[in-house]
Amino acid sequence: MIKLHGFSASNYYNVPKLAMLEKGIAFEEVLSYTGVGPTYKPEYLDKSPLGKVPALETSDGFISESRAILEYIERAHPEPSLLPASPFAIAKVQELSQFIELYFELVARRLIRNLLAGTQPDPAVLKEVGSSLNKAAAALPRLSSFEQFAYGEQFTLADIAAILNLPIVRNVGKAFLGKDPLSEVPGLDAYCQRMEERPHVRKIRSDAADSRPHFMAHLKALYGI
Amino acid sequence: MIKLHGFSASNYYNVPKLAMLEKGIAFEEVLSYTGVGPTYKPEYLDKSPLGKVPALETSDGFISESRAILEYIERAHPEPSLLPASPFAIAKVQELSQFIELYFELVARRLIRNLLAGTQPDPAVLKEVGSSLNKAAAALPRLSSFEQFAYGEQFTLADIAAILNLPIVRNVGKAFLGKDPLSEVPGLDAYCQRMEERPHVRKIRSDAADSRPHFMAHLKALYGI
Repeated sequence: MIKLHGFSASNYYNVPKLAMLEKGIAFEEVLSYTGVGPTYKPEYLDKSPLGKVPALETSDGFISESRAILEYIERAHPEPSLLPASPFAIAKVQELSQFIELYFELVARRLIRNLLAGTQPDPAVLKEVGSSLNKAAAALPRLSSFEQFAYGEQFTLADIAAILNLPIVRNVGKAFLGKDPLSEVPGLDAYCQRMEERPHVRKIRSDAADSRPHFMAHLKALYGI
Repeated sequence: MIKLHGFSASNYYNVPKLAMLEKGIAFEEVLSYTGVGPTYKPEYLDKSPLGKVPALETSDGFISESRAILEYIERAHPEPSLLPASPFAIAKVQELSQFIELYFELVARRLIRNLLAGTQPDPAVLKEVGSSLNKAAAALPRLSSFEQFAYGEQFTLADIAAILNLPIVRNVGKAFLGKDPLSEVPGLDAYCQRMEERPHVRKIRSDAADSRPHFMAHLKALYGI
């Protein structure tokens, strides 16, 4: 059986986890805090070269990096598909996923340590982050109206990207920018509420909530935060 | 005919350009400096939501983000393939591509303005960049021995990622870190030399060299650097 290594408080871990839940693939979860701090065991590096979470253990070997793992899951278990049918529509789903990851998640993540520790960000970093997030929020309606799903009329990898990567943007916005930069994207709030009602998304959130105290205790032991 | 919008001094532009050259796809190049500075025309935002280069114009519409464009190219023109056959091998190619983009290119890019302007980086940023690049260089041999190609026995998207994203790492290393962090990765120097001998890679380098003075003049007009 496929094994997913990591922990449920990690959004990166939850990307392939949600994909496998939505596709109905049986998998085993293997708890690993590797990649968080310097305490990982060297042998994990054979699974994930920089020690990052998640890693997928398949009968052929290990795969790291969420997007590469999604590629494996989609190709090894094509039905039900998390991609539309045409090459153009598939590329648009990937474009939207990439947009969310690069211009929202990676940007907001620069303040995650402040968010977890409750400390104030460096003002220069905060200014850069705020400006980038606002630009991305202004551009997002060009890629999606969020009327039904993130792209087109079926649940796709773009929905998974939105569900798992946008909450950190809202949290960073509310904590440090005085407002949630996503709140003015037309249709997005209602879309996000609809997505939260999906059974597998509820399961992801519930597992994340269960995992968080253990993760925080792990962080505290590592960094004293 | 497919149109690629952007400019040949951009590595991001060259990713889909090299893929189309290697696959023998006919395409037209449309010069656009959009995304470099604030001078782009608003109508370009319908092609690329943040005004970034490149954008691919297909009969179905526009696609931005290099990885999404690659997805379209590979699916719309599957032969000759730039991916191996099995789901696992495809995922490993994507893992290596992602690794190169996230942990080398995006990191080294933080110093590109200093590289272009010949100015000294902020010491704190330089320290972070150096540390991250050295970690990534130490981990890279876990993903590839670079014996023949970047992954397996055929030219793939991982080779395109390596060919176009690693030179900036070497340049940043030599300019600011006192050494090229990639020089100690076993097999990598010889591999890169082999790749540079490929006719389509030579074409990319030659077009980039021709494009650079125009690009620099554009930058100078924008920023005075």
